[in-house]
Amino acid sequence: MISVPVRIWFFGDSMVNGTGDDACLGWVGRVCAAARRRGRDLTCYNLGIRRDTSADVLARWQREAEARLLPEHDGRLIFSFGANDCCPGEDIGGVRVAPGRALANAEAILMAAVAWRPTLMVGPLPICDVAVDRRTRQLSGDFATLCAHLRVPYLDVFDLAAASDTWTREVAAGDGAHPNEGGYAVIAGVVENWTCWRAWIDRTTSN
Amino acid sequence: MISVPVRIWFFGDSMVNGTGDDACLGWVGRVCAAARRRGRDLTCYNLGIRRDTSADVLARWQREAEARLLPEHDGRLIFSFGANDCCPGEDIGGVRVAPGRALANAEAILMAAVAWRPTLMVGPLPICDVAVDRRTRQLSGDFATLCAHLRVPYLDVFDLAAASDTWTREVAAGDGAHPNEGGYAVIAGVVENWTCWRAWIDRTTSN
Repeated sequence: MISVPVRIWFFGDSMVNGTGDDACLGWVGRVCAAARRRGRDLTCYNLGIRRDTSADVLARWQREAEARLLPEHDGRLIFSFGANDCCPGEDIGGVRVAPGRALANAEAILMAAVAWRPTLMVGPLPICDVAVDRRTRQLSGDFATLCAHLRVPYLDVFDLAAASDTWTREVAAGDGAHPNEGGYAVIAGVVENWTCWRAWIDRTTSN
Repeated sequence: MISVPVRIWFFGDSMVNGTGDDACLGWVGRVCAAARRRGRDLTCYNLGIRRDTSADVLARWQREAEARLLPEHDGRLIFSFGANDCCPGEDIGGVRVAPGRALANAEAILMAAVAWRPTLMVGPLPICDVAVDRRTRQLSGDFATLCAHLRVPYLDVFDLAAASDTWTREVAAGDGAHPNEGGYAVIAGVVENWTCWRAWIDRTTSN
């Protein structure tokens, strides 16, 4: 049995980037490192961008993914965005991207993604701002419904992060929106134990 | 005195990506984590792509950098490529990108980069293939001359990596081209002590 080489693109926002993490890993680096230490031949492309909304990800993900893929590769996609959509802005309801448009953006992204490559989605995370977080929590639930409809596996991590003392303490001690090593490790632990992620990582092939 | 927030894009090949590193840091993640642990408010965008040549980086760096920058940000650029140019291919001399074209690509990248944002360049690394490495070492010297002409600080790391027992042992034990944690830590140590990098990291401002 050998590990099949896999290349995973992670698209999303600052939480995907790992902003605020003094270890410069974020949850993305942690789950990828854990997979490699279990013997998985995995290449990680972290394509999280600070302040990116669903609209920003929609505008760039295909071009950036294609630049990182040869046809013979086993390339896979993970998306995680939505909190920036819920921040104050110029769209309907005074947010950066109104929920209806955020859902339409997510649907456009995910429909193209699943038609092309294996795809997972991780829900948006709290930034410890009451008004933003209330909207983000609602949007995360709406993403869950959308993903069920599209048959894209979805991991809702909002309540778990919001209930984590480590998460809230580190966000408060940091820039007010992002955790540090402990908070990202909490999310990494949840993703690592997600059956859909595990199915990607534990897959081997006879040789 | 406060640390000025800085966002650094690292453009290049698999060695920038950190391919083969079970810690999923590479030299890029290690130097950024070290800077953050020294109190530097730094956001890292790792834009290394496996198999990328100078031509591939030329084709994408500006668009990918612009997608990661707001005008008010202190954004900086580090480039590191060249070993893939020297691999067997269809260009003159039987390589993927002939030296003359690699130098022209580097010049086009660096001239646009330095006119836009603070820019550094780190030289290409050995992959422990005698013929490829001989060409890469020569190209690294040519990049040094080009960078001196363009006044872009250049760090030649080729001989140091080639002479490192850790580097060569890990490349041999891995996929034959990339080191693991120890090899990337060797390069990270050299970059961390580079006066040009230090000047970026140690910079503070009165508040």
